[in-house]
Amino acid sequence: MSRWEPDARGRLERAALELYSERGFEQTTAAQIAERAGLSERTFFRHYADKREVLFGGAHLLEGAFVETLAAVPSAVAPIDAMGLTLEAVSAFFADRHDFARQRQAVIAANVELQERELIKLASLSAALAKTLRGRGVSDAAASLAAEAGIAVFKVGFERWVRDGSRSLASFLREALLELRVVVGPSR
Amino acid sequence: MSRWEPDARGRLERAALELYSERGFEQTTAAQIAERAGLSERTFFRHYADKREVLFGGAHLLEGAFVETLAAVPSAVAPIDAMGLTLEAVSAFFADRHDFARQRQAVIAANVELQERELIKLASLSAALAKTLRGRGVSDAAASLAAEAGIAVFKVGFERWVRDGSRSLASFLREALLELRVVVGPSR
Repeated sequence: MSRWEPDARGRLERAALELYSERGFEQTTAAQIAERAGLSERTFFRHYADKREVLFGGAHLLEGAFVETLAAVPSAVAPIDAMGLTLEAVSAFFADRHDFARQRQAVIAANVELQERELIKLASLSAALAKTLRGRGVSDAAASLAAEAGIAVFKVGFERWVRDGSRSLASFLREALLELRVVVGPSR
Repeated sequence: MSRWEPDARGRLERAALELYSERGFEQTTAAQIAERAGLSERTFFRHYADKREVLFGGAHLLEGAFVETLAAVPSAVAPIDAMGLTLEAVSAFFADRHDFARQRQAVIAANVELQERELIKLASLSAALAKTLRGRGVSDAAASLAAEAGIAVFKVGFERWVRDGSRSLASFLREALLELRVVVGPSR
């Protein structure tokens, strides 16, 4: 007897973020999220395996977008420049997501278990990027280092964008990559 | 009725690593570790809160060594060079630990929960290094980026050293830092 619920996923997501912000992640149940969204608990579980997935359900899409974009960059482009182009392209993913990202970040910052899950997400992303770079003929260590550098840039740029939505994520990522280049600088 | 057990901690550590390697981390109990070490279970729990701590008990010592060393580098030294000096100094920590590190890495690679714990350890280390750099007057983003870069170098250099103990950890870390500099390279 399932029926189509317009934008059920988006409604559940917004309801979950509201509740996590109001009462905390741990104190919120899937039933409460469904209720707030005006949907049934069954509909919730058709869209999300559990309440944590509302925050991490996009992780595999993000990783897929990163890997596909990086793989499509011509292999003559240096690894770090390929990372820069990838970060810029992937930031389109977050174009209308500033409010979501800000609320999500606050929920995660308040919960150790979610922070761990976020670390795991980023480590998985870094490993996928390193593997993709190796597939482009980049050496083992250079691939790992370029991927880790890319993730560091993503973390720093993303955090700044979350705090200041007046500019695009892409511009914060560009800035963070330039700063990394200054910081790591020429060998002495 | 506790009595002094010569090198109890070292004996427990070696026994634990043997058992984790033989039967897997999950299948090993604290009682079995104590028995293999020829010590009582009570002695085990005097040294370690649980069987996971045998693998991570050194984490706060390592973090302390990193932070103290970095804080002691003259502040005129550029952040990334300060990170390089710190990595080199801290590698003395692992001077006689190649066998332990190799066994430990294999145990961790076989267990998702331990991999997560390792990620958390490194994230905590990165945050502590970034905080120390900020205390040296380094800007927020540069501190985060230099710390993340240092941890990336540590991960890559450490993994290589674990696979090839013929050279010192310090030399692998130096090499990885140079590679990072080549990879991140000059801005174009």
